[in-house]
Amino acid sequence: MPDRSLIFPAQEYRARVAALQARMATDGIDVLLLTAPSDVFYVTGFLTRFWESPARPWFVVVPIEAAPIAVIPAIGADLMRRTWLRDIRTWDAPDPLDDGVSLLAETLRQVMPGAGCLGLPMGLETHLRMPLGDYHRLLTAIAPRRVVDATETVQRVREIKSEAEVGKIRATCRIADAAFARVPDFAHAGRPLDQVFRDFQIALLAEGADWVSYTAGGAGPGGYGDVISPADARPLQAGDILMLDTGAVKDGYFCDFDRNFSLGPPDDAARRAQAALFAATDLALERLRPGMRACDLHRMLTDALIAEGATPGGGRLGHGLGLSLTEWPSVTARDVTPLREGMVLTLEPGAEIAPGRILVHEENIVLRTGGPELLSTRAPASLPELRA
Amino acid sequence: MPDRSLIFPAQEYRARVAALQARMATDGIDVLLLTAPSDVFYVTGFLTRFWESPARPWFVVVPIEAAPIAVIPAIGADLMRRTWLRDIRTWDAPDPLDDGVSLLAETLRQVMPGAGCLGLPMGLETHLRMPLGDYHRLLTAIAPRRVVDATETVQRVREIKSEAEVGKIRATCRIADAAFARVPDFAHAGRPLDQVFRDFQIALLAEGADWVSYTAGGAGPGGYGDVISPADARPLQAGDILMLDTGAVKDGYFCDFDRNFSLGPPDDAARRAQAALFAATDLALERLRPGMRACDLHRMLTDALIAEGATPGGGRLGHGLGLSLTEWPSVTARDVTPLREGMVLTLEPGAEIAPGRILVHEENIVLRTGGPELLSTRAPASLPELRA
Repeated sequence: MPDRSLIFPAQEYRARVAALQARMATDGIDVLLLTAPSDVFYVTGFLTRFWESPARPWFVVVPIEAAPIAVIPAIGADLMRRTWLRDIRTWDAPDPLDDGVSLLAETLRQVMPGAGCLGLPMGLETHLRMPLGDYHRLLTAIAPRRVVDATETVQRVREIKSEAEVGKIRATCRIADAAFARVPDFAHAGRPLDQVFRDFQIALLAEGADWVSYTAGGAGPGGYGDVISPADARPLQAGDILMLDTGAVKDGYFCDFDRNFSLGPPDDAARRAQAALFAATDLALERLRPGMRACDLHRMLTDALIAEGATPGGGRLGHGLGLSLTEWPSVTARDVTPLREGMVLTLEPGAEIAPGRILVHEENIVLRTGGPELLSTRAPASLPELRA
Repeated sequence: MPDRSLIFPAQEYRARVAALQARMATDGIDVLLLTAPSDVFYVTGFLTRFWESPARPWFVVVPIEAAPIAVIPAIGADLMRRTWLRDIRTWDAPDPLDDGVSLLAETLRQVMPGAGCLGLPMGLETHLRMPLGDYHRLLTAIAPRRVVDATETVQRVREIKSEAEVGKIRATCRIADAAFARVPDFAHAGRPLDQVFRDFQIALLAEGADWVSYTAGGAGPGGYGDVISPADARPLQAGDILMLDTGAVKDGYFCDFDRNFSLGPPDDAARRAQAALFAATDLALERLRPGMRACDLHRMLTDALIAEGATPGGGRLGHGLGLSLTEWPSVTARDVTPLREGMVLTLEPGAEIAPGRILVHEENIVLRTGGPELLSTRAPASLPELRA
């Protein structure tokens, strides 16, 4: 039976660490310190929902020329032992007097004898998942070793997905495809939006999601107001556009795409917005190539929407995807990250139909040499109608 | 219809802010900076699953003598406007050149003219949810203003739940009670554990959970190995003890308790462990009083387990609960936090049956003057049997 605590063969993780270590050499980093759930999972295969508890920090130390070391709360030792890591050091957490700081400092001093440069992700889209006070204590305990930003080190490696990873994301997309196909069964006029959200999550689980880390959506006459609000109890009604968006998880990998539905026939404005979003997405699917930058994709989508007579709206127009619901880069005018072969991305153009009324269209792709390969099943060209 | 974006009347949030401000005065803090999802929700009522995306930081600034100010990504403006906050400042995030740092610094300089003391939670169980590099930029931008640890300021206020909050946690516990009652419908010999986990999440949603942020559990002959692993595909079999644990969410409030089941009749060791855990919990339900400390509760449970012939095991023996799956304090030997009236806690004694084989028992309570009031429906004294 598959040991779900590992997800991939050890070789996958070894290749990741080798890629990180090669990049560390380029960036002048001797040891990498990882604290975020997705970084820890990426290096070790340690997968748990226990991250939901903010009580304990978890550390993975990646020396430039040796295997990673886990410095973790004792409660995670059994699970970490089932991964490919062999050097696992634990303490009884949470400890108000010393919550792993001494053990981590001792480990860092050991792998950086004398001096050295510790890399820690501290740039855009990163968080230090340990108390800030303990971080300050750690700095003192490992002085005179320097700490530098390792955001590039981690992101340039993690953003290129292996075929094994692409396969996992595709599998999660398939689950969401199947759940979206069930929407007409439970969403119709008179049904409260919060019940629709529950039924959608149930459908995702029934189709094989391990868990549903994210659902969002909206519903309103001819369009919705925003895409991050929780559902209210308002019943769906004729003329509404309903959007459902999900970040379901299978084997630790996310999908992230939405689908729109019309309660009965959509009005002309919604029809036009849908046509523009569909055409803009088609254009990106046809023309996007490795070597373009995130801002080039933003420009491509924005220009296409305007050419189709739509007003761009709704936030960034896409982002990375994989071990988190969203990863870098961001499809914005300011993000100059090069888009490379093997990146998994969302294409997420949005259009403002009227003030406070938007429509957002989203697909998941992997970027190949010849252009995007869809991971989500392409949305229908016209808004599917639900019983009104 | 209820506006789910607020959850409570504005008065509830005003009272919270007044309590924080009173505590800020005691602690010598002029302005509080909050970045964590639960802190932001506590002060504003801003509830969204969008926190799942690590892409953007969100800030709430609480001056000691004025209403809170939200400094947030533009994508959240609509939802934040539906809360009681009136001063909402936004930027287009994520911005790789300046992701809200200037806007936040300007806001802080405004509310702390000249100098002052900024409080930021940086102690046990806290994280700074913004990039560390941006935090360093912020420090420079607001110099010479000082930054101090505001962990106590926030935790001593948040840990006392209002009756409105207790009502919400009780409602979530009721949902989990109802879902646990359905377990015999879908868990029996031959059923793979990962399917049981999915069905359990479906049951929680069907019973009214808005979402299921956490499920964990385990199954094994006469006990399970740990309580944080994801489920594997191993089918349940006669003699297994199955444990399911959930942090379901309704209106932003968590429950967190588990239930154990036996596949057919439990063996003597499991029966004895269950009896010891049940008796230790009963004792705490009877004897726990405000004024005791977390470590006193730890001692009480540990002594009771030993007196019952059990070997304590499985991690801390309880913790706070509410806006997060776990909150401080921790029921450990080292946590001296006073337990006060109005705290919501888990009682979570665990027993080691054999090396690598444990049983964990969990209830949710609110501490009253006269002792604990159960929020979860008390587990049965004997292990309920599932079809083997």
